[in-house]
Amino acid sequence: MDATELAAHYRAYIACLNRRDLDALGEFVADDVIHNERPLGLSGYGDMLAGNFRDIPDLAFAIELLVCEPPHVAARLRFDCRPAGAFLGLAVDGRRVVFTENVIYAFAGRRIARVWSVIDKAAIEAQLSRE
Amino acid sequence: MDATELAAHYRAYIACLNRRDLDALGEFVADDVIHNERPLGLSGYGDMLAGNFRDIPDLAFAIELLVCEPPHVAARLRFDCRPAGAFLGLAVDGRRVVFTENVIYAFAGRRIARVWSVIDKAAIEAQLSRE
Repeated sequence: MDATELAAHYRAYIACLNRRDLDALGEFVADDVIHNERPLGLSGYGDMLAGNFRDIPDLAFAIELLVCEPPHVAARLRFDCRPAGAFLGLAVDGRRVVFTENVIYAFAGRRIARVWSVIDKAAIEAQLSRE
Repeated sequence: MDATELAAHYRAYIACLNRRDLDALGEFVADDVIHNERPLGLSGYGDMLAGNFRDIPDLAFAIELLVCEPPHVAARLRFDCRPAGAFLGLAVDGRRVVFTENVIYAFAGRRIARVWSVIDKAAIEAQLSRE
């Protein structure tokens, strides 16, 4: 895939997440995917997402920035949601938090093989401490 | 600049930081640069870096991953250092910490106009809690 195709494919992956279509995850994620150095595999990756959807009922992924140089995609994702209980070890307890994730993916063909993700935990802490 | 030129230029920016050459910062950073929504400007950006170098005497920037689609650059930076006192609100106090930063830049010509940075604070917390 060239950069335009890969960017469109990545947007389709995010749309798949936003419709909670974990049955289609295998179209976008490799069987042996590694997430932040953890060899989750496709099933573990799906379990991670299912846990996110359970813990954050209104979770939605919004792409703020997309940088595409095959086989890599980098994105800045924005979240505006209400985690039900603890999130990243913080007692959010249903309060609204707005935060970002900067994430880089390495694709192998059409599937995500590696993910390097950093969530802006400090931004969430700052919002909670202001309340 | 095409992707190859921009990547080389970004590597020169990181080399500039690693030799603490803040006098050359204007070759790489725009007068009206905005860092994580803060309009620091070139002088404020230099002040931020000077503060980083003071707080973390052995600070060095290592590029782990580089994704370049002009005018954007995304990077995963790795740090292996000993912040002297508090860092990101954590009492590191000279202990060795290894952590990453996922950062995206928008260039205007040869200069960085916008920076969106997320540092993996959770990784630092995990290291400190293991000690």
